[in-house]
Amino acid sequence: MIKIRVRRLNWDTSVVTDHGLHYFDDYVPGTTYDCGSVTVSEAEIISFATRFDPQPFHVDPLAAAHGPFGGLIASGWHTTALVMRELVENYLPAEASLGSPGVDELRWPYPVRPGDTLHVRATVTEARRSESKPDRGIMKTAIEAVNQDGRTVMRAIATNFLRVRPGGPAPEA
Amino acid sequence: MIKIRVRRLNWDTSVVTDHGLHYFDDYVPGTTYDCGSVTVSEAEIISFATRFDPQPFHVDPLAAAHGPFGGLIASGWHTTALVMRELVENYLPAEASLGSPGVDELRWPYPVRPGDTLHVRATVTEARRSESKPDRGIMKTAIEAVNQDGRTVMRAIATNFLRVRPGGPAPEA
Repeated sequence: MIKIRVRRLNWDTSVVTDHGLHYFDDYVPGTTYDCGSVTVSEAEIISFATRFDPQPFHVDPLAAAHGPFGGLIASGWHTTALVMRELVENYLPAEASLGSPGVDELRWPYPVRPGDTLHVRATVTEARRSESKPDRGIMKTAIEAVNQDGRTVMRAIATNFLRVRPGGPAPEA
Repeated sequence: MIKIRVRRLNWDTSVVTDHGLHYFDDYVPGTTYDCGSVTVSEAEIISFATRFDPQPFHVDPLAAAHGPFGGLIASGWHTTALVMRELVENYLPAEASLGSPGVDELRWPYPVRPGDTLHVRATVTEARRSESKPDRGIMKTAIEAVNQDGRTVMRAIATNFLRVRPGGPAPEA
């Protein structure tokens, strides 16, 4: 999970690129982690939407050209799934992740179009030990995906359960 | 978009199965629409998660058996995408849909496992004409997916933009 990445955007200089994230204990509230980037192709946009969100502006370039967005755009669920992939690879370690009960304030403020490159970052906003299950912590993360022009295309607040480090300190009383 | 569906669950008897949904004007706040059902296979769970959410409990049946859920479960994003498909087919008409700015309170309260059948329903909770764009309305929908045992596996509050009926009445002053 330790990755050094070249920053391609003018991120805030406090963004962490050497993550060292393995267990709940490693996440520091207030810290922003660079979680990599992904480029979206037209073929992928159409393929995903054909299966899951077959609205004309997601699956039919000709219809989309005359539709509300003036061209083909990715399903918001496709964008979100692509962002999830980056989070799994760069932010949620397999040894610690215990799933998620949900996400709040999921937004798609700007369309994702074929060829767009999305940069993903994650800011820990809350982290507390579970009171009922001492093996884990509960973390909230502000997720943001920004395109190559600096436009935010997706944001959300995710909740995740993460294992605490084995043999680590007991929760504070 | 007019479909008659046999109800397989003991839905509230006010659930609408003959939809007649074409434009914003057709959605009645307080009404619940049956939006069909979908069965999830192990192969699909693994395929989706391999691409978008490759955590062990989504992609590796053996690791998942010893993991936090005691077996393979679907990515929450996969569940949500499958629900979206039902909504596109049964609730969001192509002639009227103008996209979505986002979703609130997305929850996965119970795991989705291979072979589960998810029943989707949608309740209109708010519907108002746009003040800035007279061609459309803004609708909020409480979405719920329930498995074959009556357990809620997903819920959310979605916002959608929908065209008003062409030639219909002007917005109220």
